[in-house]
Amino acid sequence: MASLRIREAKEGDCADILRLVRELAEYEKLSDQVTISEEALRADGFGENPFYHCLVAEILPAPGELQGPCVVGYGLYYFVYSTWTGRCIYLEDIYVTPEHRGQGIGSEIIKKVAEVALDKGCSQFRLAVLDWNKKAMDLYKALGAQDLTEAEGWHSFRFEGKAMREMAGR
Amino acid sequence: MASLRIREAKEGDCADILRLVRELAEYEKLSDQVTISEEALRADGFGENPFYHCLVAEILPAPGELQGPCVVGYGLYYFVYSTWTGRCIYLEDIYVTPEHRGQGIGSEIIKKVAEVALDKGCSQFRLAVLDWNKKAMDLYKALGAQDLTEAEGWHSFRFEGKAMREMAGR
Repeated sequence: MASLRIREAKEGDCADILRLVRELAEYEKLSDQVTISEEALRADGFGENPFYHCLVAEILPAPGELQGPCVVGYGLYYFVYSTWTGRCIYLEDIYVTPEHRGQGIGSEIIKKVAEVALDKGCSQFRLAVLDWNKKAMDLYKALGAQDLTEAEGWHSFRFEGKAMREMAGR
Repeated sequence: MASLRIREAKEGDCADILRLVRELAEYEKLSDQVTISEEALRADGFGENPFYHCLVAEILPAPGELQGPCVVGYGLYYFVYSTWTGRCIYLEDIYVTPEHRGQGIGSEIIKKVAEVALDKGCSQFRLAVLDWNKKAMDLYKALGAQDLTEAEGWHSFRFEGKAMREMAGR
């Protein structure tokens, strides 16, 4: 029987990660915002001071099956910092392909991220969810997360290139 | 005349940073959440792989004045990652003491963060604002930021220790 493995991504996984990044953006109805390249993912995740870390969920073929392992999900995270409580982990993306949902793969990825967070001495595990993604919101709340936008009124703001250049006077 | 300098924080600034972190949390009416120590700020910001970077705004005394330089503001940031556009900078905290506001010190800090972001090849400059802090929201919007919670519906979620341990099965 085929089996599941959650493991740290290697540089050679970047093509698979990019494929799934694009699928997730389609699901979020924001795919026109994706401009990243496989080369950027390689350079930024696998250098000396990586900008991110990534877990991949891989289906391993049963003995005797001809096809190789297949990456069907990923969780991309990095470390952030709270001046109130110290080190935190931030899960930027989590995604499992539609045909592999309902098998607990997402939960396995979240579990692994929580393990990394505790091993690294993190006090918080943060993430962001779109308000129409009720299923994800309910899952995170059931797992014990607090919706800080709802509870405290936090809004996420973003400057992009033009605004950044103007602020920097360039 | 006294003059202003924005510079990178040194390890010896941690006591000043902690003082201002506490002032900011008071202002945000959430000071009961501050548990960090000066030691943690030292260890996490000034080791080999720092979890954060910090700018401090310092008033330098005029020649002949007896008191030393005085830290009156800070901006604490770190690098995060967008799987859509790559490297980003995140401004976790920005604060100027009440008696030094209205002199453009906050804007100088923001400008410097934008410069660092561009120098490091960041595509975005992110931050979070409390919805009742209308003054800050208006400033960021005037500088060209988009409120992503309003525009796209992003909500910030957070797991804390107990939930993290349960997820990790510890």
